[in-house]
Amino acid sequence: MVEKPGKTAQEMARDHREVAVSEFFEKNRHLLGYDNPTKALLTVIKELVDNSLDACEETRILPRVWIEIKPDGADRFRVMVKDNGPGMTDKQIPLALGKLLYGSKFFKLRQSRGTQGIGASGTILYSQLTTGKPTTIIASTGNGKTSYYEIMIDVKKNDPEIVSHQFIEDGKIWHGMKVEMTIEGRYVESRKSVPEYIKQVAIANPYANITFDGPNGRVEFPRTANELPPLPKEIKPHPYGVELGILRRMLKSSKSRTVASFLMNDFSRVGGGSAKEICKLADIDSKISPQRLEITDTEKLFKAMQKTKLIRPPTDCLSPLGEDLLIKGLKKEFKAEFFASVTRPPAVYRGNPFQIEVAVAYGGELPQEGSIKVLRITNRVPLLYQEGDCAITKSIITTDWRRYGLSQSGRSIPVGPAVIIVHLASVWVPYISESKQAVASYPVIIKEIKLALQGIGRNLQRHVSGKRKAEMQKKRKEIFDRYLPEVAKAVGKLTDKKPEPILNKLKGILKNYAKVSEDGRGKEKTENSG
Amino acid sequence: MVEKPGKTAQEMARDHREVAVSEFFEKNRHLLGYDNPTKALLTVIKELVDNSLDACEETRILPRVWIEIKPDGADRFRVMVKDNGPGMTDKQIPLALGKLLYGSKFFKLRQSRGTQGIGASGTILYSQLTTGKPTTIIASTGNGKTSYYEIMIDVKKNDPEIVSHQFIEDGKIWHGMKVEMTIEGRYVESRKSVPEYIKQVAIANPYANITFDGPNGRVEFPRTANELPPLPKEIKPHPYGVELGILRRMLKSSKSRTVASFLMNDFSRVGGGSAKEICKLADIDSKISPQRLEITDTEKLFKAMQKTKLIRPPTDCLSPLGEDLLIKGLKKEFKAEFFASVTRPPAVYRGNPFQIEVAVAYGGELPQEGSIKVLRITNRVPLLYQEGDCAITKSIITTDWRRYGLSQSGRSIPVGPAVIIVHLASVWVPYISESKQAVASYPVIIKEIKLALQGIGRNLQRHVSGKRKAEMQKKRKEIFDRYLPEVAKAVGKLTDKKPEPILNKLKGILKNYAKVSEDGRGKEKTENSG
Repeated sequence: MVEKPGKTAQEMARDHREVAVSEFFEKNRHLLGYDNPTKALLTVIKELVDNSLDACEETRILPRVWIEIKPDGADRFRVMVKDNGPGMTDKQIPLALGKLLYGSKFFKLRQSRGTQGIGASGTILYSQLTTGKPTTIIASTGNGKTSYYEIMIDVKKNDPEIVSHQFIEDGKIWHGMKVEMTIEGRYVESRKSVPEYIKQVAIANPYANITFDGPNGRVEFPRTANELPPLPKEIKPHPYGVELGILRRMLKSSKSRTVASFLMNDFSRVGGGSAKEICKLADIDSKISPQRLEITDTEKLFKAMQKTKLIRPPTDCLSPLGEDLLIKGLKKEFKAEFFASVTRPPAVYRGNPFQIEVAVAYGGELPQEGSIKVLRITNRVPLLYQEGDCAITKSIITTDWRRYGLSQSGRSIPVGPAVIIVHLASVWVPYISESKQAVASYPVIIKEIKLALQGIGRNLQRHVSGKRKAEMQKKRKEIFDRYLPEVAKAVGKLTDKKPEPILNKLKGILKNYAKVSEDGRGKEKTENSG
Repeated sequence: MVEKPGKTAQEMARDHREVAVSEFFEKNRHLLGYDNPTKALLTVIKELVDNSLDACEETRILPRVWIEIKPDGADRFRVMVKDNGPGMTDKQIPLALGKLLYGSKFFKLRQSRGTQGIGASGTILYSQLTTGKPTTIIASTGNGKTSYYEIMIDVKKNDPEIVSHQFIEDGKIWHGMKVEMTIEGRYVESRKSVPEYIKQVAIANPYANITFDGPNGRVEFPRTANELPPLPKEIKPHPYGVELGILRRMLKSSKSRTVASFLMNDFSRVGGGSAKEICKLADIDSKISPQRLEITDTEKLFKAMQKTKLIRPPTDCLSPLGEDLLIKGLKKEFKAEFFASVTRPPAVYRGNPFQIEVAVAYGGELPQEGSIKVLRITNRVPLLYQEGDCAITKSIITTDWRRYGLSQSGRSIPVGPAVIIVHLASVWVPYISESKQAVASYPVIIKEIKLALQGIGRNLQRHVSGKRKAEMQKKRKEIFDRYLPEVAKAVGKLTDKKPEPILNKLKGILKNYAKVSEDGRGKEKTENSG
């Protein structure tokens, strides 16, 4: 147990060995979102639902997702997520779920919820760590065969450990997947909870039909849209976003015969003309093999790629929600009097296309007291944790909301009866940790979010100031109404006339005035989509 | 480039493959601290210096570290870190530096700077990504042989790629290691910079001798202590900190013949009596083989381990700095009038022993304006980033500093002429990301930090209030001095006596009064270690 002090380099070398990525994340489970039992329960649901929705969309199936959470002894829950997706081939199941850093999305430049191949296998890792039990997976691709697996992860090797494997021969034809596991967790219904998460998923994915059967009963989230958004397309990297070391690797492994064709085939937005221009600027023969470039030439090529004028990356790799769906989503959950949304044109950070959409709900039955509610969404996935470190929060608190009709003290979340939803869609969302709960603060991302916020801010300001004006006029009318008889009497006395006709005349004037003011308010109403 | 919509499960399966951990961190380089050029330069220095200091301490060598940063073209730097440590065996070098998640520290419960085997190889990954160049490593273990390597990382495989390897035959006998690389970076000398980092390293490691040769010249940080702190000892896990999944794995791989001997050999603080007690409580035969336990028995054993009364984990696995070194470190860098420190007894989170030390410097030449300076240190490594998310910052802003004589508005860093240093020593520091810049907010860690802060707060309060009292008395004495002749004259007139003897009497009274007040202040001085 105790080692002698003063080891030698030889002795130290003997202690070295490889750390399996599964063992790394087991020890650092907070990096995957398993810091505490409440967050852990949410993370398990989040990862499994993300996978279900991704699979459905990729295969163009309108998603139907069932979520079940049932107590299973003290601090333990039996958790189940089932979908009507494409299922998974029998052979694929153990690797896709029983091995970390295994997947397809990591290598694709296309908007999707999952990216790293850690999420689903991470849930199994957490389940076995806290309860020692295997996870059950039942899946079928629609071919009449249903696979049944019980899986654990061999943490020292990062390999699936198949506890049980059989086919269920019940003749049923179906497609989809069901994952069921026991985990340590805590169930709450507060701000950062599973019910809140599912509610926000329903807002951001209005074409999904979700059933949640929780410890306190069953809730349905029927779909409010019947069409899937278009499938985002996979793109190739843009020359502006590539890094020198990656360019070097791409050159070495390229199948293209010349540097020019390499540029045209392996990148987006590079045509024959641009390819020649890049090579000329780099002082490189465009016809030599990409494998033959030395590091100094690679560097020259790299610099020339940055300097050559090229069209921005294509943006059909993105699938924003659109203003309609955004507002539909908000209306479904919040009884407000005013709705507005802004969609920014696509932009690019480190070569990765991204797009910001923002919507606001204001007034009505929203609570007057306290901070506004902020929904942070990335690639249709709601984020509930680490808000303080998120580029979305930072953009909100550094926007001056007092000029848009909300209260705000210093750099904080504004106060008022409002809900703001911010959606960041990107082929690669830069999260600050593997648990994917906050967006890293790239200046261009913050700039885009703030521009969108200012857009809805101006709409909000028009509505709030119109509303204030109308309220003030209403109050004035009430005061007039109250004092009109007195005024008529006084005027009658002064002019020595009967007060009744004067009162009627005064009432007539007031009526006209009120009409004008209501018309004025009516104009604002076109802004009100409520 | 464009795929048809509506893929099948079979088609999706074909796209799946393993993601090498190196490729994962290359794409997510911000997780390792490579978000931007300024932070990247700091991260490279930090990781290499951490490794040098760890190696020296483990082999009981008083550390001598040379750091060099020289511009190498636009936005590029040639970076070198050299130490007088144990060096590394020729065979070990490529794996230790050219492979991520490879090392010895991950598996040991003992305080050290490095833990995951990602740091040093991460610097090479970043260097080749941004400059395409290999890293040079020169090392010798003192056997007269000097290894020379140029290394890159095969990112797709997470394996070292040896670009060049030879022995330098110059007959020189030395031990140590030199790592040299070219990176993209930005050099600044502001708050979160390399010079600030090195300055804090010198404070937290006063027994290290550091030379920093930067773009703006050479700075020496001579050692102020000539003895290494004791080498922390490796411990075995404590039964209270183990997780069910890990216990299951430990049982399966144990070499012990019985469950009782397993408990005694593979855990700390379990003697024969406790082992029997645990087995009895779990209703398990203490003599059966640990391999034979089923999951239900494992669970019973797990619960019994938590319920049995055991001594806390040993704490010689920790190596705090000690009050003397802490205050020495502060005095070296800050000209203050008052110093105090508090060391908490060791505590435990999730079975991991940890210990909090806090020291404060106050007044003197420290700036009166602005927030106090906070130095966050974990296992002798200064943290410069992500302070907002760090348990240390959270502990400071949730402490009421107004009662201790500092200004503070709401939950913010207090204002005043003070520097506070917080050191967390632990066998496993729970960082919020792989870049290891902030401590996760475990309640027991925050509690311990706050108790230590309150301790120095009370010392500070006594000093500040004593100082205020003395200042007030001095002012009063000055006023008396000024008006004494007037008073004497007036009293003389009233009593019809000469004013001179009255003035002398009054002066005598004032002198006695002042003496008492200075004595009162003198008592406080014992608190002043300055």
